[in-house]
Amino acid sequence: MNIQDYLKQQQERIDQFLDQVVPPGHILAKTLYESMRYSLLGGGKRIRPILTLAAAEAIGSKNNGVLPYAAALELIHTYSLVHDDLPAMDNDDYRRGRPTNHKVYGDGLAILSGDALLTMAFELCSQPASESPIPAERQIQIISEVALGAGHDGMVGGQVMDIQAENQDIDLLTLQTIHNYKTGKLIRSAVRVGGIWAGATSTQLERLTGYAEDIGLAFQIADDVLNMTGTREELGKDAGTDAKRGKKTYPSFYGIDGARELAAECISRALRRLEDFDEQAEPLRALANYVIQRRN
Amino acid sequence: MNIQDYLKQQQERIDQFLDQVVPPGHILAKTLYESMRYSLLGGGKRIRPILTLAAAEAIGSKNNGVLPYAAALELIHTYSLVHDDLPAMDNDDYRRGRPTNHKVYGDGLAILSGDALLTMAFELCSQPASESPIPAERQIQIISEVALGAGHDGMVGGQVMDIQAENQDIDLLTLQTIHNYKTGKLIRSAVRVGGIWAGATSTQLERLTGYAEDIGLAFQIADDVLNMTGTREELGKDAGTDAKRGKKTYPSFYGIDGARELAAECISRALRRLEDFDEQAEPLRALANYVIQRRN
Repeated sequence: MNIQDYLKQQQERIDQFLDQVVPPGHILAKTLYESMRYSLLGGGKRIRPILTLAAAEAIGSKNNGVLPYAAALELIHTYSLVHDDLPAMDNDDYRRGRPTNHKVYGDGLAILSGDALLTMAFELCSQPASESPIPAERQIQIISEVALGAGHDGMVGGQVMDIQAENQDIDLLTLQTIHNYKTGKLIRSAVRVGGIWAGATSTQLERLTGYAEDIGLAFQIADDVLNMTGTREELGKDAGTDAKRGKKTYPSFYGIDGARELAAECISRALRRLEDFDEQAEPLRALANYVIQRRN
Repeated sequence: MNIQDYLKQQQERIDQFLDQVVPPGHILAKTLYESMRYSLLGGGKRIRPILTLAAAEAIGSKNNGVLPYAAALELIHTYSLVHDDLPAMDNDDYRRGRPTNHKVYGDGLAILSGDALLTMAFELCSQPASESPIPAERQIQIISEVALGAGHDGMVGGQVMDIQAENQDIDLLTLQTIHNYKTGKLIRSAVRVGGIWAGATSTQLERLTGYAEDIGLAFQIADDVLNMTGTREELGKDAGTDAKRGKKTYPSFYGIDGARELAAECISRALRRLEDFDEQAEPLRALANYVIQRRN
């Protein structure tokens, strides 16, 4: 399959859904909606929701019903970027080639827009059971999965670890833990949500989870490499920021070539996890390879 | 019934639950847990979760099973205070008689702790259906209720309205709308969650909703009055801050006495909504009166 065509198609499907997800809302809070839409529709790669769709497809469902849950993961990813870019955190001025949310709307609005995007993720996941094509029990399981991947023992926990490790001489195990929490756990949830939605058996879900953990690690290693080798134009944000901040990265332990090799090993392992899946898992397989070949 | 005894008893019940809710977690994110606990266990009045418990009781259930949902509302209230106090928002140094979260842990950690508290609210609401004493459909309805009350079209929307109205010459209708979103909607959700949990009929839920809207308004009017008449010792935070910021309040439209009268009218209306409820609604009735008699 052609991964570029597949990505483009799925991105459009997700973008179309996301475009309708934030309603114009109350006139007195107009800026909130503008600010939410500014970051949500700012042209992300949509990796996490695409993983959700691809995981559901691997289990046998290409149904649109999974879109709200896939979108929820993108809302959470977006909120984390908005908060991460704040002066009190990474203090980044550019994101996806445009000024960051707080640069346009101010710090207060950026904090609140992030809060609203996070909350809306759970609004999307809790559509009335009567309108949902899956059993309510499964819906609860998905919500739990999203909350765990995003929260104190997931992504947010990882961001705190990351802040505390800045300018510290951390070892490789610590680096891996930070990345696992900061990036890995939400990617893991994205894949598992697709699987749960489509009714994966416990064996299937276990394999999907392993796949997600492997590509999550590869994704982060590739990110570290891109931060060193990419240009500002390719990345849509400042390049070389990790080194400037004195952050330890995979290349600082393994060198650039060593890090690339390690990422490739993760991808091989991820593909082996899918050996028992049929051709419906082709998108998942193609995504694994894409993760380390991408330019941004 | 003695409202002070009732409040103390329920506060202890909730505080005990909240104390166990934030686990020590990963050693690398230790500060996150400290910061979450600092704000969560800082001695709040627990009005929202107590309303949830009292609403469940009014429908006939005194069961502990509602505690995770009641706690979720307190987590959301707490996160909103942590974010609200940030320099980028209200820039408050004191809360409940202690330095605010960002004063102790820094702005970055305060943002992330708020994010984690909000996410944890949904973790609490999505406990496995197999361990839940209520049907999964009802659990979904509760999660939706919480997300709607807290998000873009609820509390966060209200905070945005509030920011945008600062130093504006707003009219009474605008003031009411802001307060309804900023404070009323989450109080409404707190009451409704208790009702839904306990299996309220649609008529009962409608009456509980009316009750909640009435006391929500009274609560905010009383808050405005307290901000003008209370001392720093009573409030546990700076007094007279609204006037200093040039914020329009109920007393600025009605005067202090007029505002107090208006709050009392809201409470009478709230009590009439409960006319058809039996003695199990006594806590709800007592809470209505407490809302306008409190000193902080």
